[in-house]
Amino acid sequence: MNHGTSLLWKRRTLSSLSATRRGLPKAKMSENGVVPRAKVLTIDTMNPTVKNVEYAVRGPIVARAVELERELSEGMKKPFAEVIKANIGDAHAMGQQPITFFRQVLALCSYPELLNDSTFPDDAKSRARRILQSCGGNSMGSYSASQGIDSVRQDVARYIERRDGGVPCDPNNVYLTTGASDGIMTMLKLLVCGEGMTRTGVMISIPQYPLYSAALAELGAVQINYYLNEEKCWSLDISELQRALDEARNHCNPRALCIINPGNPTGQVQSRECIEDVIRFAAKEGLFLMADEVYQDNVYAEGCQFHSFKKVLFEMGPEYSDTVELASFHSTSKCYMGECGFRGGYMEIINMDDDVKAQLTKLVSVRLCPPVPGQALMDLVVNPPQPGEPSYDNFIKERSATLSALAEKAKLTEQILNTVEGISCNPVQGAMYSFPRIIIPEKAVKEATDKGQQPDMFYCMKMLEETGICLVPGSGFGQKDGTYHFRMTILPPRDKLQILLNKVQEFHQKFTQHYS
Amino acid sequence: MNHGTSLLWKRRTLSSLSATRRGLPKAKMSENGVVPRAKVLTIDTMNPTVKNVEYAVRGPIVARAVELERELSEGMKKPFAEVIKANIGDAHAMGQQPITFFRQVLALCSYPELLNDSTFPDDAKSRARRILQSCGGNSMGSYSASQGIDSVRQDVARYIERRDGGVPCDPNNVYLTTGASDGIMTMLKLLVCGEGMTRTGVMISIPQYPLYSAALAELGAVQINYYLNEEKCWSLDISELQRALDEARNHCNPRALCIINPGNPTGQVQSRECIEDVIRFAAKEGLFLMADEVYQDNVYAEGCQFHSFKKVLFEMGPEYSDTVELASFHSTSKCYMGECGFRGGYMEIINMDDDVKAQLTKLVSVRLCPPVPGQALMDLVVNPPQPGEPSYDNFIKERSATLSALAEKAKLTEQILNTVEGISCNPVQGAMYSFPRIIIPEKAVKEATDKGQQPDMFYCMKMLEETGICLVPGSGFGQKDGTYHFRMTILPPRDKLQILLNKVQEFHQKFTQHYS
Repeated sequence: MNHGTSLLWKRRTLSSLSATRRGLPKAKMSENGVVPRAKVLTIDTMNPTVKNVEYAVRGPIVARAVELERELSEGMKKPFAEVIKANIGDAHAMGQQPITFFRQVLALCSYPELLNDSTFPDDAKSRARRILQSCGGNSMGSYSASQGIDSVRQDVARYIERRDGGVPCDPNNVYLTTGASDGIMTMLKLLVCGEGMTRTGVMISIPQYPLYSAALAELGAVQINYYLNEEKCWSLDISELQRALDEARNHCNPRALCIINPGNPTGQVQSRECIEDVIRFAAKEGLFLMADEVYQDNVYAEGCQFHSFKKVLFEMGPEYSDTVELASFHSTSKCYMGECGFRGGYMEIINMDDDVKAQLTKLVSVRLCPPVPGQALMDLVVNPPQPGEPSYDNFIKERSATLSALAEKAKLTEQILNTVEGISCNPVQGAMYSFPRIIIPEKAVKEATDKGQQPDMFYCMKMLEETGICLVPGSGFGQKDGTYHFRMTILPPRDKLQILLNKVQEFHQKFTQHYS
Repeated sequence: MNHGTSLLWKRRTLSSLSATRRGLPKAKMSENGVVPRAKVLTIDTMNPTVKNVEYAVRGPIVARAVELERELSEGMKKPFAEVIKANIGDAHAMGQQPITFFRQVLALCSYPELLNDSTFPDDAKSRARRILQSCGGNSMGSYSASQGIDSVRQDVARYIERRDGGVPCDPNNVYLTTGASDGIMTMLKLLVCGEGMTRTGVMISIPQYPLYSAALAELGAVQINYYLNEEKCWSLDISELQRALDEARNHCNPRALCIINPGNPTGQVQSRECIEDVIRFAAKEGLFLMADEVYQDNVYAEGCQFHSFKKVLFEMGPEYSDTVELASFHSTSKCYMGECGFRGGYMEIINMDDDVKAQLTKLVSVRLCPPVPGQALMDLVVNPPQPGEPSYDNFIKERSATLSALAEKAKLTEQILNTVEGISCNPVQGAMYSFPRIIIPEKAVKEATDKGQQPDMFYCMKMLEETGICLVPGSGFGQKDGTYHFRMTILPPRDKLQILLNKVQEFHQKFTQHYS
């Protein structure tokens, strides 16, 4: 113990004597030697469920990436010229261009003076007028109904009906949200109750998108892991669901089953047969289904097709469609639009108890309403330019260009990664991510463990420092013990993605050599 | 018991036999006589804290108002031609015009092609360029940092410094939010812990803005009521704070004190002296201060001035400024801009423990980021056109027009309401609401109670049905037992407000006569 620490200790002891009233936490001493009042809110006295929250997609590795960017901009020497962030599905940040029509309508809604501007196409103007007419005082600055603007919910319902081959959708079952995360959090909030052995358990895939684990931690719910089958292209086995459920029933009350399709971080697209099996399983076991379908337009692999849970449920007949409770989530952030910053989204609820629905409506009213620009954008996504309208051709051109570029990059990613010894990568059938398995040499595992780090965190951190590439370690999403992965997005422009993949290849070889 | 019920009962008993496996809730029978699977999520098996949430500003009276609007539009005969909603601080919905400069910049940010349009002023363009440069890929469609865009937080910090006469503000202490509600909810979430006698208690004013009670109910925290002094223009007495705190210490762990200044729903503006007293009280009693200052530009009464808690805290010297923990909240929704739909806001945190701050940053990262258009708007609010810039004069003109119209309407409201026998109304010194006390005759109280309604809910519902005016009963905000109030906004345009006030007057006289 050095002198400073010893002095600190003594002063603390003194200060703690006066801080014992009503059990206040002990005071810390400030640098100037004055003993301030004890803090009300400390790490020991804060909400313990918040402490349990983890969110790898924006964790320490991203913080370090931001730091590196700053250091580079300040002229510090690094072994790379730029940081490439492939950690998050943030399309525009990676250079993807917004859909012109969407942004025209948003500009018109923001500044309706532009409705007199002859350079804007008529369909953009009529769309903007319709949105503004649904806003109080014809302004996006008004609160909307808490469930979302009526006309937008109607458009969402029609979109769902078209998508699902005519299966009916009631706009009253549609809730607009602040991105899909908000909807998922809200649904989980409704579901959580009980204590100890009767505490609500929620089944989530492993690997998972860490919003789920974070939300469950915050709500103090029990996370029930079911493992996707990496050997079968991250498919979902019902026997694994059953195993996870049966084990969980020994210590909690499993009530919901979450599915991400197309998969994040794993990029698989579920077969229709598998979705049917999941629905049957949920029905048999009395589970509320939550279908995260935000990547519904992101399907690349031949022979793969997006099937919504809603459509499959209704095609299975009334035995299921009249009873199985389902919430399905969509967003403006993914697909071909990639408008993350607007925080738009919706959820559709099926077979929800009327009283619970009233509670849901009440709950969302406390936050007043989802952001109206995000609602407007959601409206455009579900009601884009139609054939014959002036913006149609350009819309189709832009959308196709983005989706086919993504399909190409999905293939490129899989191909290059699979050429590297020690990396194996399932096809990126859909979504925006590759989740390759990496072999980390024993010596590296040991070095990481000695440092108290997950081996794949150690690996990704080293890659970041040496190459400027920011990926998220598989441990942030969950993986089978003893296996290691990383998640990378396929979003960088083709040339940059090529560089990125080459650098990953090079790094992996050097890393393996170094630790062998 | 009639035949139908009896049959239902029998079928239920039968169906419940097969639904007992794993304690599933009993099945309800559908109308066609088929016994479906029991619902997973019912009112009995949902999150009990959500059930406890109440939010009067969007409660049954507003639902009925929306219904009446529909009925009117369908041609149904009513004793009024339109529904006037004075239930919520939704300025644009009441016809207030947005600030031109703000909307120009938002249009430019939404559709950057417009940067080539010569009709937009240069200052709007340079502001838009600066915002876009801070966005990934120069697009509002990118996620921002979870704490908010760096440059916006810097502008917020400079705004706070100007507002507070040079008291320093660190942008690292600024978090952008999805409206103020989001920030308040997040801070409360951090503060809540413990069980039973040690459960976190939070002091809120009565009357209060029901976001607070709703948030506390959802978090399962203990609501500690302190009453504002209606006789002294809704001022805050320290002795009342002490009473409330001392009583609460018998059954919970009081940890935070929430203040709304200027007041919602009560419209008072706190004196500097009172704020000092509150800070001393919080320091002495070890309470985390939460200052809801979203109406900081809405001060109308002569001799009244807005004092931020931050400024007063720092002017009280290091004994306080180095120790008292404070979170202060602001929003794009109120003041002269009234941009509720964009869901923009910020909070500044003072003296927060570093470890807790790291937890806060982690917690907000799960939701990815606040809506970027709302962040852009917040930036414009804290960094509006400056003298010499092309948009300055018009900006000042628009802002002053809105604020002086509000001041005039505040006065008009007070004056007219105080002419009515049985209504007494404190001056609307600030914010956007009047919260007059109303005398409800004994007979009406009895009729309401017999119907299981709060007397002021009964009163407001009758007013809605007879006049089309939508107000919120005082019971939704809390009030001293045996007193009755309503909250009305002063936002309708002057002529409509005059009609509204005359109708209230007329209704109150008729109501009083009828029940006397």
